[in-house]
Amino acid sequence: MSITPDQQNEIDATRLGGSSTLRPTVQAIEDILFKALPILDHGFVRVVDYMGDDASVIQAARVSYGKGTKKVSEDRGLIRYLMRHSHSTPFEMAEIKLHVKLPIFVARQWVRHRTASLNEYSARYSILDREFYIPDATQISGQSKTNRQGRDEVLGEEQAARIMSLLRDDAERNYAGYAWMINEDDHGAVVDASRSGLARELARINLTLNTYTQWYWKVNLHNLLHFLRLRADPHAQHEIRVYAQEILKIVSLWVPLTYEAFQDYKLNAFTLSAQALATVRKFTEGTAVSREDSGLSAREWNELIALLPALAGQANQ
Amino acid sequence: MSITPDQQNEIDATRLGGSSTLRPTVQAIEDILFKALPILDHGFVRVVDYMGDDASVIQAARVSYGKGTKKVSEDRGLIRYLMRHSHSTPFEMAEIKLHVKLPIFVARQWVRHRTASLNEYSARYSILDREFYIPDATQISGQSKTNRQGRDEVLGEEQAARIMSLLRDDAERNYAGYAWMINEDDHGAVVDASRSGLARELARINLTLNTYTQWYWKVNLHNLLHFLRLRADPHAQHEIRVYAQEILKIVSLWVPLTYEAFQDYKLNAFTLSAQALATVRKFTEGTAVSREDSGLSAREWNELIALLPALAGQANQ
Amino acid sequence: MSITPDQQNEIDATRLGGSSTLRPTVQAIEDILFKALPILDHGFVRVVDYMGDDASVIQAARVSYGKGTKKVSEDRGLIRYLMRHSHSTPFEMAEIKLHVKLPIFVARQWVRHRTASLNEYSARYSILDREFYIPDATQISGQSKTNRQGRDEVLGEEQAARIMSLLRDDAERNYAGYAWMINEDDHGAVVDASRSGLARELARINLTLNTYTQWYWKVNLHNLLHFLRLRADPHAQHEIRVYAQEILKIVSLWVPLTYEAFQDYKLNAFTLSAQALATVRKFTEGTAVSREDSGLSAREWNELIALLPALAGQANQ
Amino acid sequence: MSITPDQQNEIDATRLGGSSTLRPTVQAIEDILFKALPILDHGFVRVVDYMGDDASVIQAARVSYGKGTKKVSEDRGLIRYLMRHSHSTPFEMAEIKLHVKLPIFVARQWVRHRTASLNEYSARYSILDREFYIPDATQISGQSKTNRQGRDEVLGEEQAARIMSLLRDDAERNYAGYAWMINEDDHGAVVDASRSGLARELARINLTLNTYTQWYWKVNLHNLLHFLRLRADPHAQHEIRVYAQEILKIVSLWVPLTYEAFQDYKLNAFTLSAQALATVRKFTEGTAVSREDSGLSAREWNELIALLPALAGQANQ
Repeated sequence: MSITPDQQNEIDATRLGGSSTLRPTVQAIEDILFKALPILDHGFVRVVDYMGDDASVIQAARVSYGKGTKKVSEDRGLIRYLMRHSHSTPFEMAEIKLHVKLPIFVARQWVRHRTASLNEYSARYSILDREFYIPDATQISGQSKTNRQGRDEVLGEEQAARIMSLLRDDAERNYAGYAWMINEDDHGAVVDASRSGLARELARINLTLNTYTQWYWKVNLHNLLHFLRLRADPHAQHEIRVYAQEILKIVSLWVPLTYEAFQDYKLNAFTLSAQALATVRKFTEGTAVSREDSGLSAREWNELIALLPALAGQANQ
Repeated sequence: MSITPDQQNEIDATRLGGSSTLRPTVQAIEDILFKALPILDHGFVRVVDYMGDDASVIQAARVSYGKGTKKVSEDRGLIRYLMRHSHSTPFEMAEIKLHVKLPIFVARQWVRHRTASLNEYSARYSILDREFYIPDATQISGQSKTNRQGRDEVLGEEQAARIMSLLRDDAERNYAGYAWMINEDDHGAVVDASRSGLARELARINLTLNTYTQWYWKVNLHNLLHFLRLRADPHAQHEIRVYAQEILKIVSLWVPLTYEAFQDYKLNAFTLSAQALATVRKFTEGTAVSREDSGLSAREWNELIALLPALAGQANQ
Repeated sequence: MSITPDQQNEIDATRLGGSSTLRPTVQAIEDILFKALPILDHGFVRVVDYMGDDASVIQAARVSYGKGTKKVSEDRGLIRYLMRHSHSTPFEMAEIKLHVKLPIFVARQWVRHRTASLNEYSARYSILDREFYIPDATQISGQSKTNRQGRDEVLGEEQAARIMSLLRDDAERNYAGYAWMINEDDHGAVVDASRSGLARELARINLTLNTYTQWYWKVNLHNLLHFLRLRADPHAQHEIRVYAQEILKIVSLWVPLTYEAFQDYKLNAFTLSAQALATVRKFTEGTAVSREDSGLSAREWNELIALLPALAGQANQ
Repeated sequence: MSITPDQQNEIDATRLGGSSTLRPTVQAIEDILFKALPILDHGFVRVVDYMGDDASVIQAARVSYGKGTKKVSEDRGLIRYLMRHSHSTPFEMAEIKLHVKLPIFVARQWVRHRTASLNEYSARYSILDREFYIPDATQISGQSKTNRQGRDEVLGEEQAARIMSLLRDDAERNYAGYAWMINEDDHGAVVDASRSGLARELARINLTLNTYTQWYWKVNLHNLLHFLRLRADPHAQHEIRVYAQEILKIVSLWVPLTYEAFQDYKLNAFTLSAQALATVRKFTEGTAVSREDSGLSAREWNELIALLPALAGQANQ
């Protein structure tokens, strides 16, 4: 993570003081508010603001005049009911705002989630930091054979080293070209007075996709959970998944009842297709099942077997 | 306004206590937080939660590590610049949540603003209050002749009285039918044990469009301003405009710099079409202008003259 | 259904002629294009326009320069893959536009789906038709005991008749009040020249929620399927479900491969929560399961048993 | 533009045949349908599908049973009225789908328009083309002094040449690194069998931001006009503005009445702030005006003077 001392001072200053509010407050989030939580080699996530808590979900679901909550068990039951039946609007009633530093190629995936508010650092206006994501050796992997996107096993040590240095060299060289073209140093001072600098909006096109950018991102709890469901998934690219995993932890601190329900009904749930359901039903009724009879594709069958290994046993009989 | 003592107690309870937060806090909103601000005969608006303030707009525009604000004059200038150039994303970084009680026909207009979160009181699940909007005599007006929607001059006293009593009688009678069909009193107790009640989701279809409903509505500042621009406009129906006007006051307390910029660049601004601009230019250059030469429709011409009466004077010469 | 002869003539006129296009065309939709498909007592759905077909989903998924489709079996496989993994963006690439006539209380539920375009008949500008939804005896049901919203068993014949006539009388009387207040007949002619009419935007507030309205509704295939999943569901209110069912038929004509995948992976699929999955796994491995040990609520357990009855058998042993 | 012969054959094949439809058809769009319209050095825009025309806007505004159009002058008047009063929903009733090839840094600006559907060519799954945007000498400009983003005067010929070759060299070298890492040729064949290729999702992070990508983009007419208003604006970066300008031409062919209204009420209109309006009014009433008295910032004053030069003349007196 690359927080400069000046930036750290700014962050520290925002954690001084505090004021009294009648709004719902979550102490576990107040404890980490504004702090930069490191991700990848130079990235971070900071919670910059939040609105509401688990009780806000309940309050809205009940269109309450007061807090809306009753006994903890009833509140938990209601949140689980809402999550299970995809009654999503009450979860839109809580909101969080994050400051994120992330490589541009990750930003490109992230921004496909349209139902959020976003302010990105402007490279038309400002100079980008000299920071690039270089994967470590544990991430230098081959193309997946099974699903035609994603990664497979890690490449050898030697090849990993060559790749890491290629990525670093190219990023550094291209940044040097960028710096030469704008003809300014990190503080915006002209370097070579004998020539004009290129407009920043053009010079930046020389940068590589692993250059870091940053933005403010504000999203409601419902849309955040949808984002996390897709991006904390094993099929998501590693580099965005680590952001999703850090944000999942934040969610667990912020709205623990919602987080638990999300785990049970979404993240760790499994949807049986009509064919898979019929297959499981047959098996539970004592009938042998097989991939051939199931109407499932090979991939679907394998995923079902991974969850319910007993089906394979019988199928093999 | 119809807040029951129980509801008032619930509201009062939410105003007790308070906790410490590091988040931006706006005292003027804390002062009115949760309180029901009366609108129309039984409606209200309550601020239930809020996120951010004027500084949050600036902080996001600058993608700041700290508060992001500088001198007041610079902050004001930046907010005015953003408003003027419709750089809307920083205004999405503040959020407000309202509890609103409103007639169903107003709710039907309101909900056309899609970029907000909404939880409405469910008439499939709960019993609606016996409350109806009855316009007072100052609102009993004829159909507008000029714009084919909207209202014109107030009708006579006698006719107003007849209309008001017709509206009241029909609403009361239909509610009585509703109550008879569900066969429950206001507390959900069965009235006539000798017969079953009709499902609430069906019984409600007998109610009139001036019956009050209520909802939680959460929206970001940008989308709220868009809503206010359309609904605080003189062309909006009076019954939604009074809500917009009350919310405008809330905005002025919450984000005073944004409110001022909104007044200057949106609410009190006027857009000259290409033709209107050419007409004004001609006039300022000393050339006579007329409706016939302007390319403006009669209506456009009249609106231009209302703003710049001098153009009409010359046109008449 | 209430199509006037004039309206039918207008519809018939749009079905004359036809022109040549290079765009993807679906003959089964052309066959029903513009025709009013009756729903409830006065409602209808008409397909007014459409864009794309199953191949458009594939074409976008492949970012193709041509049609993008290959063998039927490959196309079908890709569509099923996209549906199964909730890769929703290719399904956004087909679009449909419907003209719908529907009771206002149904319109109020419908409009909660925000990701669609909507133009509603304006009751500020125009006079509403004298048409009301009156449920028939098979729909006159009591409040559901089990899920606290929705309906239960049908009420007796005599009570149904009383309810139907109450609904009809109240709607008719309120419409008569509306007509008296606007002081215009169905063709907009003044009825009583001795008095002014009330503005339409106010008079309409006297109408009941079962009055019919109409609108143009345009939505992409992804958002339409989401709408159908919620509104064709047995938990949806009957009166919106019949619209969803009719639209489902349209979808089956329009995009048959997508429709089949939607049936298998969404409509007829079942999501096992983490707890339900563990329960099924235990059962398939020969271990007895019970509601008490499962961590499932009574309702969840019952739903699981309804799908996999064998689990209950063992649980009872 | 870089259309391979195979791609051109695919495009040509889609222009063969044609089928009969009852849907609204626009011959001027049929004439260009599927054809690649070149933009920048390797980019293009292709209209892939469309729904509706000017009449569709009118049909929806009138919630018509038929075509909804009347006399041409009435139709034009209604479209102008809708545009002028920002009654945007009828413009949502027409839709267009484009296939666009564009540099990644342009794609990053484009995608900030969230209310559209998008399928991008996947660099996790496929190999990107060896194509980079290199600005020509007329675009090699310095950083703008006046507005702190954007460009100013063109740099000298020699420096332009150095910049162009730097951009080309860096892009080529980084692409070569990419190709080496994935260890595949353009057809996906393994180059060096003695080593494994790096996963594509990782290798691509070495590419520069001027690498071309491509996508399918589908948007309704209202949101398209909003996009064009921001991106055809002189403040927009040149490289996205040329796309906006090409799409503007497509709009003029597709919906000529809407296009004309858009020009008059949006593109070539000017919004007077409350202060600017007061200034113009004073001037038209014969009172001298000055920047100091106007309440306008220097920038606002200059923009006003640019439109109404006569105000400056008097101010100087």
